[in-house]
Amino acid sequence: MDAIDVIVTKRDGRELSAGQIDWVIDAYTKGGVADEQMSALAMAILLNGMNRREIAEWTQAMIRSGARMDWSSLPGPTTDKHSTGGVGDKITLPLAPLVAACGGYVPQLSGRGLGHTGGTLDKLESIPGWRASLSNDEMLDVLGKAGAVVCAAGDGLAPADKKLYALRDVTGTVEAMPLIASSIMSKKIAEGTGALVLDVKVGSGAFMKNVEQARELATTMVELGTDAGVETVALLTAMDRPLGRAVGNALEVTESVEVLAGGGPADVVELTVRLAREMLQAAGISGGKDPERALADGSAMDVWRRMITAQGGDPDALLPRAAETMEITVPSSGVLSRLDAYGVGLAAWRLGAGRERKEDQVSFGAGIVLHAKPGDLVREGQPLMTLHADETSRFERALAALEGAYTVGETSDPDLLPLVIDRITA
Amino acid sequence: MDAIDVIVTKRDGRELSAGQIDWVIDAYTKGGVADEQMSALAMAILLNGMNRREIAEWTQAMIRSGARMDWSSLPGPTTDKHSTGGVGDKITLPLAPLVAACGGYVPQLSGRGLGHTGGTLDKLESIPGWRASLSNDEMLDVLGKAGAVVCAAGDGLAPADKKLYALRDVTGTVEAMPLIASSIMSKKIAEGTGALVLDVKVGSGAFMKNVEQARELATTMVELGTDAGVETVALLTAMDRPLGRAVGNALEVTESVEVLAGGGPADVVELTVRLAREMLQAAGISGGKDPERALADGSAMDVWRRMITAQGGDPDALLPRAAETMEITVPSSGVLSRLDAYGVGLAAWRLGAGRERKEDQVSFGAGIVLHAKPGDLVREGQPLMTLHADETSRFERALAALEGAYTVGETSDPDLLPLVIDRITA
Repeated sequence: MDAIDVIVTKRDGRELSAGQIDWVIDAYTKGGVADEQMSALAMAILLNGMNRREIAEWTQAMIRSGARMDWSSLPGPTTDKHSTGGVGDKITLPLAPLVAACGGYVPQLSGRGLGHTGGTLDKLESIPGWRASLSNDEMLDVLGKAGAVVCAAGDGLAPADKKLYALRDVTGTVEAMPLIASSIMSKKIAEGTGALVLDVKVGSGAFMKNVEQARELATTMVELGTDAGVETVALLTAMDRPLGRAVGNALEVTESVEVLAGGGPADVVELTVRLAREMLQAAGISGGKDPERALADGSAMDVWRRMITAQGGDPDALLPRAAETMEITVPSSGVLSRLDAYGVGLAAWRLGAGRERKEDQVSFGAGIVLHAKPGDLVREGQPLMTLHADETSRFERALAALEGAYTVGETSDPDLLPLVIDRITA
Repeated sequence: MDAIDVIVTKRDGRELSAGQIDWVIDAYTKGGVADEQMSALAMAILLNGMNRREIAEWTQAMIRSGARMDWSSLPGPTTDKHSTGGVGDKITLPLAPLVAACGGYVPQLSGRGLGHTGGTLDKLESIPGWRASLSNDEMLDVLGKAGAVVCAAGDGLAPADKKLYALRDVTGTVEAMPLIASSIMSKKIAEGTGALVLDVKVGSGAFMKNVEQARELATTMVELGTDAGVETVALLTAMDRPLGRAVGNALEVTESVEVLAGGGPADVVELTVRLAREMLQAAGISGGKDPERALADGSAMDVWRRMITAQGGDPDALLPRAAETMEITVPSSGVLSRLDAYGVGLAAWRLGAGRERKEDQVSFGAGIVLHAKPGDLVREGQPLMTLHADETSRFERALAALEGAYTVGETSDPDLLPLVIDRITA
């Protein structure tokens, strides 16, 4: 077998055999298949697709390229969530401790942000002392103490995916649906969770711009998880506007703590509770504490404090704040009919909340606080949002990103997506 | 501009702008666009195509990546031929001196063989002393002395093509029609010929397996040449069976010298004369000596001897012969209805006439001599072909390649392609 044989098969619209898939992923991981060969194959996959069997075998081959974690020594079932990423999507922060407070074990491996959507690790790293990198033993220790752990995936987990993802990033092949699905699912299956809830975001601020694409991706991922013995369910949720009121690393931690304290924006609370119930149900946990109750009685907050402390963080520390702020006011009275997630995400990124290249540092304090959400009545001159940045020089390009990103009209936008659009199961 | 922008444009089925094409070829030549990016783009081009404008601009950008040769100091018009390659295709050897004998100047830059079709330079290098590498001044000197020169293209000619061709070779993207056309034509236009005749081979032994593909490629190349001010015409010719009776480097030189001496196989003579007339007509040369006459009166042979001598070769030297031969006899009496070009080409390659990797040496003496051609009456036990190799160990794999490659029946195959199938002009 050689790389050209595999490439030509997919180029000519034929199915890859299990043997071809195993060989090409293994050889690519070990360096026997060159980057330029894998990128040609990725483009052929993007344009000619893969069927369910091919995607499943591709995913399994990526899992086999590395280690698979094992949580069987824990006294209860594991359950996890993965979001395809959105603007203001800090849900993991309140969700992981909330599910742990209700009886699930949450072993979540997360990533850093690249582009206009933030990364969970970047957000948590704004907490002084908190460490993202843990050994497997440390993960097990934190899980045992707190019931939830959020940390960086080690190099041993699906190394083929790590290599392929970096390649796709520079070759215009990120958008290949089979590769998106297998990338996410290979990591989640290798992570060893017993149940998985996928939060597939839809809208301008998400990777999937429309419901049909999102449904296809969600269905594929649910099938992959199910085939691999992971109880998997997906929700399609709205990302046409930002989630919550805070966008930016430390700003989102603050909002998450508000939710854990029983407050916080309604949409963040609603989605956190809904996802918690899905995670518990998928893990077969019933009759335990209800998530709404665990937010109200402080037990989710207790888990949060234990989890942060166990990873070296100080849950009482003051979070970094940006040196400069700038307020944007409402241009005319009416209803805030539209607040575009992509525009807000791009503005926050330009303020310093995100990174341009992998090696860049994020600004923990930078970001945007929204004072109104779509559907809210607003009055001319009242604050609409506050921009936070370390240097005033960043405001100009952020303002440019916000141009046309919001509309004040007479009524709400009837096309606004419902918060939870659909639920996909096997 | 960046590489991802260009890749995504073609990936999504849109047209590349002139600016995108110029930028990506220039940056690729200089190393600013990585191999893995160019291979993803090549695959997108293969699957989504390019229109006439894009192919023309791509070709011009590849020409601009290097030097363009200039023959305006010669006292007569230049004219050249390019073949897409076939089994036993030694036509350049008698053709270049023949056209020179009739008043044209032939500045032919040729290549080496890779795979089952031979390379013109490999054939000429079987002549003791003959040198393929010439400086521009040496080329001009040989052209002045002999009227024809066949040599290797220098590194300065369309370097983008050289780099891209090597990349396509390992990424399953050789078959992209726009890239085949622009690769051939960028080199021929940069070579500076005033007129060009394309011999587009069709059949099992050729790159193009059917007439429709070949016609599309020929039409595209004729358009490219015409747009660049080169008088261009294409013939589609048969490559379902080998051309002539000799396949292999020194064996083909011997057959070429037979043609120049007024003899040789009928198909080689017919195609050589036809292509010579096309080259003279395209160059606007009329009223000179007719090619048939130049073969008969020895003037083409005189040019051959001058051309070989001017490049250090000895036209009277004995050519290398393989140490071992093996005869294949006719299995049963009848008509040789089929003799598959690909099977014969693959067998010759396995006998040592071709190379597996670029750095391999060819065996000058290895190859096959055919004692019958499709349509000939043959009698059981009479010699059908003779295999030549340096070691007897090579015969077994050559015989395997020939299994099923010929058929003796009751009548000729009615599907045999005519020698000249079609003629394509602007």
